[in-house]
Amino acid sequence: MKAFSTLALAAVIATVALPASAQFSKPEDAIKYRQSALSVMGTHFGRLGAMANGKIPFDAKSAQESAEIVAFMAKLPWSGFGTGTDGGKAKPEIWKEQAKFHDLSGKMEAETVKLNAAAKTGNLDNLKAAFGPAANSCKSCHDSFRNK
Amino acid sequence: MKAFSTLALAAVIATVALPASAQFSKPEDAIKYRQSALSVMGTHFGRLGAMANGKIPFDAKSAQESAEIVAFMAKLPWSGFGTGTDGGKAKPEIWKEQAKFHDLSGKMEAETVKLNAAAKTGNLDNLKAAFGPAANSCKSCHDSFRNK
Repeated sequence: MKAFSTLALAAVIATVALPASAQFSKPEDAIKYRQSALSVMGTHFGRLGAMANGKIPFDAKSAQESAEIVAFMAKLPWSGFGTGTDGGKAKPEIWKEQAKFHDLSGKMEAETVKLNAAAKTGNLDNLKAAFGPAANSCKSCHDSFRNK
Repeated sequence: MKAFSTLALAAVIATVALPASAQFSKPEDAIKYRQSALSVMGTHFGRLGAMANGKIPFDAKSAQESAEIVAFMAKLPWSGFGTGTDGGKAKPEIWKEQAKFHDLSGKMEAETVKLNAAAKTGNLDNLKAAFGPAANSCKSCHDSFRNK
């Protein structure tokens, strides 16, 4: 069942592509969308980090739920970064260095897939091992593209 | 492939339960979490509605993506409505009428599962048929529990 769920999740992640054409009527809507998606992701990522760092007790089921949500949410924000949606904490570099932005966001997505697989094992050491690289993938994108 | 994706999604939805214990350090965090989850859901629900109502062209792939996101997001907000998290547009009735709140939120979740299944068929008429009841399930909860 666990193996099936992982496969099933992989199948779903594969089928949820970025919306081909983002349909935000106003730039503010796109900004709110990406901020909301990142906020939900951040909540669950933070819980995983608290478990990985021993700040809250490890709960395998809760970790699996959070990691699944993180992996799902990680696919969503990017459609909210279309041309003309500057604002929020987004640096203008996002639209000047699109190749780098897509590379870093893609790496983050890939790390959340690994993190989710690690959480599915129910083993805290696996979670710890996957959390660091995932957190670094957030940080490297934020360092380049997010205002403090 | 389409049938498998639907099955896969159903498996994932079944495995992503509400987090057993919401771990928000401050009520504001819970409020932001539920608002963010509902906002992401609302964006995609709005796109489905625009297609169902002929305001934007029907795009089967985009509809499937949005419906999948709606069904996933529909499970998330509720952990953000824990005791002591009054605020935002939430009416105090939420915490006085918990049975009704859970009933209405559960009905909404169920409608989004149907909506997702309808979108998976790639047929606009199926989407239209499922959209109305789903929209009504949002409205009936908002009418009782959300301030304007």
